[in-house]
Amino acid sequence: MNDLHDMSLRARNAYYDLSVSDLQSRNRVLLTLSEILKERAEEIFAQNQLDLADAEKSGLPAPLLHRLKFGRDKLAQVTAGLDALSTLPDPLSRTTYAEEIEQGLELYRVVCPIGVIGIIFESRPDALIQIASLCIKSGNTVLLKGGREALRSNQILCDCVRRALSACGFSPDCAQLLESREDVSSMLKEDKLIDLIIPRGSNEFVRYIMDHSRIPVLGHSDGICHVYIDQAADPALAVRVAVDSKVQNVSVCNAAETILIHEKAAPAVLPALAEALSASGVEIRGDESACGLISCVPASPEDWASEYLDYIVSIRIVPSLEEAVSHINRFGSHHTDCIITSDQAAASVFMNRVDSAGVYWNVSTRFADGFVYGFGAEVGIATGKLHARGPMGLEGLTTYKYKLIGSGQTMADIKSGAAVYTHRPLEKQCPF
Amino acid sequence: MNDLHDMSLRARNAYYDLSVSDLQSRNRVLLTLSEILKERAEEIFAQNQLDLADAEKSGLPAPLLHRLKFGRDKLAQVTAGLDALSTLPDPLSRTTYAEEIEQGLELYRVVCPIGVIGIIFESRPDALIQIASLCIKSGNTVLLKGGREALRSNQILCDCVRRALSACGFSPDCAQLLESREDVSSMLKEDKLIDLIIPRGSNEFVRYIMDHSRIPVLGHSDGICHVYIDQAADPALAVRVAVDSKVQNVSVCNAAETILIHEKAAPAVLPALAEALSASGVEIRGDESACGLISCVPASPEDWASEYLDYIVSIRIVPSLEEAVSHINRFGSHHTDCIITSDQAAASVFMNRVDSAGVYWNVSTRFADGFVYGFGAEVGIATGKLHARGPMGLEGLTTYKYKLIGSGQTMADIKSGAAVYTHRPLEKQCPF
Repeated sequence: MNDLHDMSLRARNAYYDLSVSDLQSRNRVLLTLSEILKERAEEIFAQNQLDLADAEKSGLPAPLLHRLKFGRDKLAQVTAGLDALSTLPDPLSRTTYAEEIEQGLELYRVVCPIGVIGIIFESRPDALIQIASLCIKSGNTVLLKGGREALRSNQILCDCVRRALSACGFSPDCAQLLESREDVSSMLKEDKLIDLIIPRGSNEFVRYIMDHSRIPVLGHSDGICHVYIDQAADPALAVRVAVDSKVQNVSVCNAAETILIHEKAAPAVLPALAEALSASGVEIRGDESACGLISCVPASPEDWASEYLDYIVSIRIVPSLEEAVSHINRFGSHHTDCIITSDQAAASVFMNRVDSAGVYWNVSTRFADGFVYGFGAEVGIATGKLHARGPMGLEGLTTYKYKLIGSGQTMADIKSGAAVYTHRPLEKQCPF
Repeated sequence: MNDLHDMSLRARNAYYDLSVSDLQSRNRVLLTLSEILKERAEEIFAQNQLDLADAEKSGLPAPLLHRLKFGRDKLAQVTAGLDALSTLPDPLSRTTYAEEIEQGLELYRVVCPIGVIGIIFESRPDALIQIASLCIKSGNTVLLKGGREALRSNQILCDCVRRALSACGFSPDCAQLLESREDVSSMLKEDKLIDLIIPRGSNEFVRYIMDHSRIPVLGHSDGICHVYIDQAADPALAVRVAVDSKVQNVSVCNAAETILIHEKAAPAVLPALAEALSASGVEIRGDESACGLISCVPASPEDWASEYLDYIVSIRIVPSLEEAVSHINRFGSHHTDCIITSDQAAASVFMNRVDSAGVYWNVSTRFADGFVYGFGAEVGIATGKLHARGPMGLEGLTTYKYKLIGSGQTMADIKSGAAVYTHRPLEKQCPF
């Protein structure tokens, strides 16, 4: 068990230096890390093999074993990712608002890092490198807690990150590894030292974290994503997109769980859709109307609020676009929802009224991802509405501060009329 | 006692319409409200007089009575504020990111309202109009809870807001008034229907709200603001800015509570500063070194973490800029902190390393305010780092959603190589 207060304090002190470093130095850490990972490849694979052997013995299911594996392919992906991240522009220091308040008094809003971030992630050791590198690039220090099964893999990978930091003149405490659940509980108490927790995992897990900490939490939570097939949908396109949304990868948060079909589209679309889904091994749970058109399992009320993460889909026939929107806002998880239609007016209503981070028109929900969106990578997908929404990349890891530069201005002079507000936009960047 | 579940549900439904309304309609509500307030002026003053009479009877202190008063001056300020707000540009609908993901697949990030916002504010009835109008302009619906002493004033003002909404074709439930503490407790439970709580008040109050709700909270909390007088400070400028920061209005969150002085500046600055502060009736609590230079009350360790909101200031002599920064990051409330220096390098270190929403150079901390910053008005000042920081105006009341517009794109095609990512920036706004 680690001393989390001490670790958090060291992370905070390391942050003050990292936060004011220049882009070149932060990029150098990423490129050095890429080199270290390649040099220590055999060592890393060996530690990962030990994790894999234990996991196999303890009967970890095959898909999870697959995620745990860190071999030559993963290494190549991870180092390519680091190289790519190092070419992205600086997420920091940009002036996003500049105004003269009164003569000689200049206000600037400047992008800066958030601070110390605690991230709890699943059993994918490559996630450690992705998360740590996004944090370093954006000037944040990070406390990392990975899956128990990946402990030895995470230990050596975190050691590589720390060596890269040291080699570039930064404190290794910019990245520190937590090793137990007790460490997580202790971390949640450090609300004076940690600025943000990002828990990746189930909804219940995110809820647990929120209920046990005063530190702000950005939820990478599960997804109940919908595909709504409108009255004006092209049937072939509808089947293609709905099937991809459901079956391309059933175990991820951006997979669809419920398909809504306009009653006028159902006779033409549903039989073909059911056939395609069944051919992919999907069990269909339909409402009464759906069961009247195809053979399927009757859906229960719980189905509308279920995230199956499996080869199961619920299907409901709706009388109108409005009812589809209302169903999604009521039962969805505000992650990603799609309308299939050739009617732009219907698409507009859907996309403006559905209260989700991603609203899609004629495209699979599987596209909700930071890499796909062009952010390089993501630390998570936020389904809340504050700070960041949807896939969170570098920009989601920044905040801003207001810098006000004067020459002795006082409020007394404003109140007496000796000075007046000019409120004139400035066309320049903050000088430092 | 109101049925908060029902009120929240009505606020949510009202939000779906308000959120997709055009700027002109939202501005029309503000201008109509301005007219209604003028028409009903006598009625409003009469209700406010009843509140004032009761408050006087119950012995409310004079400064609070002053804040409670809503007379002809306040009315003129409030209606001028509404007129000014109606001229500000639309905070909604702007595209802030646009990219082609693959051929024919366009991603847009579009600014949109947050949703339903609960705001708890102090006994200033004009705050009700300010808050409600900022929410309406930004497409959010709002549940308002004002001070108990202002209940009758708030009732009639909220009624004016609701009439303006109705007159412009919106649901009056875009703005609803809570009337008791029990209402607030009930509101905190509606985490499925309310998106954000903004509690204006003491730190303890904000903490209480955070600890009793799963709804995200943006804190308008108290301020422990600092003025640091550097080695290279001009003594006259230092005294002027420090005195203004402390005494121009002692009861507000952006007033200074602690003055730090570099040991090399202290002999030249401290006696003059002490004289000026004493002349304004300020009690000085100094550390040992300060007490060696001037006559003052010895400071206790609690003084560094105290928000006096009174004619009291703590003064500490520090050996270096670094120690000043470290003191502020340890004891401050991350609100607004100022350095007085003629050395730009020192200003740069201070402004980049002090972890506060506002970092000032040679200007009074009293400038930390949404109106002063040119935002029109503010719903609060956020001292956290997520979502909004510092004075929160219209922009702080918005979030964004990702709109993805395709023509049948699937992830299966990407995985098979039939389609490839282009990740090409688009130079256009989202079409709807």
